[in-house]
Amino acid sequence: MAQMADKGETFPATVENRGGTGRIVLCCEHASNHFPAGWGDLGLSAEQRLAHIAWDPGALALSRRLSASLKAPLVHAPVSRLIYDLNRPPFSAGAMPARSEIHDVPGNATISAQERAARMRAIYLPFHTALHDLLAERMALGLDPVLVTVHSFTPLYFGKRREVEFGVIHDDDPSLARAIVKAAASTGLRTGLNEPYSAGDGVTHTLKLQATPYGLPHAMLEIRNDLIHDDQSVARMAELLTPVLNMGLAEIQRQAKAS
Amino acid sequence: MAQMADKGETFPATVENRGGTGRIVLCCEHASNHFPAGWGDLGLSAEQRLAHIAWDPGALALSRRLSASLKAPLVHAPVSRLIYDLNRPPFSAGAMPARSEIHDVPGNATISAQERAARMRAIYLPFHTALHDLLAERMALGLDPVLVTVHSFTPLYFGKRREVEFGVIHDDDPSLARAIVKAAASTGLRTGLNEPYSAGDGVTHTLKLQATPYGLPHAMLEIRNDLIHDDQSVARMAELLTPVLNMGLAEIQRQAKAS
Repeated sequence: MAQMADKGETFPATVENRGGTGRIVLCCEHASNHFPAGWGDLGLSAEQRLAHIAWDPGALALSRRLSASLKAPLVHAPVSRLIYDLNRPPFSAGAMPARSEIHDVPGNATISAQERAARMRAIYLPFHTALHDLLAERMALGLDPVLVTVHSFTPLYFGKRREVEFGVIHDDDPSLARAIVKAAASTGLRTGLNEPYSAGDGVTHTLKLQATPYGLPHAMLEIRNDLIHDDQSVARMAELLTPVLNMGLAEIQRQAKAS
Repeated sequence: MAQMADKGETFPATVENRGGTGRIVLCCEHASNHFPAGWGDLGLSAEQRLAHIAWDPGALALSRRLSASLKAPLVHAPVSRLIYDLNRPPFSAGAMPARSEIHDVPGNATISAQERAARMRAIYLPFHTALHDLLAERMALGLDPVLVTVHSFTPLYFGKRREVEFGVIHDDDPSLARAIVKAAASTGLRTGLNEPYSAGDGVTHTLKLQATPYGLPHAMLEIRNDLIHDDQSVARMAELLTPVLNMGLAEIQRQAKAS
């Protein structure tokens, strides 16, 4: 179980709207609940494979709407985070978790170093290389890219209700996250800075790897998944967040000019 | 001038001793003074192309000796830093400098955004992807890699004599650099922490990109190039630095166990 059928197969990131002319580059690491044949279902039920442990429900649909409204390229994951969590480094147990929230993941119970490296090569490297290539191209062209990652979180976690609706998380540079939180005041969404997690919880790997080394402004958006559960609610959330992100961007541009 | 002959050509990093069993991974970003035909000589004289502005003289020869003595994989640059400086980000003027120390670089005087992006794609991306792949593989296998970059510096800079002989520079985590400086006391080398430059001078891009996001211990070694000017002096320096690096590594391993 949990061995790749074809050891050399790779799962490239999907890149949409590559030529988008906005400054924001969107990234959705938990877009997919696809379980490729080589790894099978990791011993999970169909219901578990639809749950938040396998992916971030609603995050890809929202990312696609924001990609259109913000003219933003979008890089998203081709497989479930339970095969390899793209927002975790290769040495992290959480990259291929044996347990997620209240669920055991049988196919991840024992993973050899070789299998860990094989998944990393098949999924992690192609994804982060694609995102890095895209950001580096824009940096070289003088387009000053900004990285925004899009996630969703479960309303009920370990049996506890989460009241926050929209979380904005940052790594080393808080400027864009703070500007987004400020701009979100007009939406009526219960918004929190560094909620429901923060960098200290190890959830900012993509920001740390792709934005912080270059000093790129960045933010990780977390939307409670009951607010993006169907087309209509996703469309409504995209309508709410598009001006919020544009205002956040305008604010950091204003700050950059003033400094 | 300074246009690529073949727009699609890439210049892969050279990787030696890939299977080296040590924890240290060596990187030599300024290994080469090769000027590929597509860019020509950038308008520089033969003498200028041999000088420290084009590469770090002695650094590759020293890196190769250390690679053997430390059983360390070595990733090194295929072209001159004046075509693309691999230790600078794509938006940096210093990645393709129009002037270096007291020398104008005519072929870099005016570079279009497209040419900047072409050089970045041809040289920067293949190099940093190769280094990232190698480090990520070792992380996934649980081999706890440590990144050490090897540079040389000129004894005379803007007409001023530099007294330091061996500099050890760090990015976010000073532990390995401090341990190396301490271990170097026995060598008699005039050694300085964060000399002749420091992270604040923007010289730690490779460490920032490849080590810091993963929390990998790291150090950038700077050796005064008059001390590694021929085979004999390089061999002598490798003999001096091999135990210093091993002691530095042992010290951070001791600290990690104690914490």
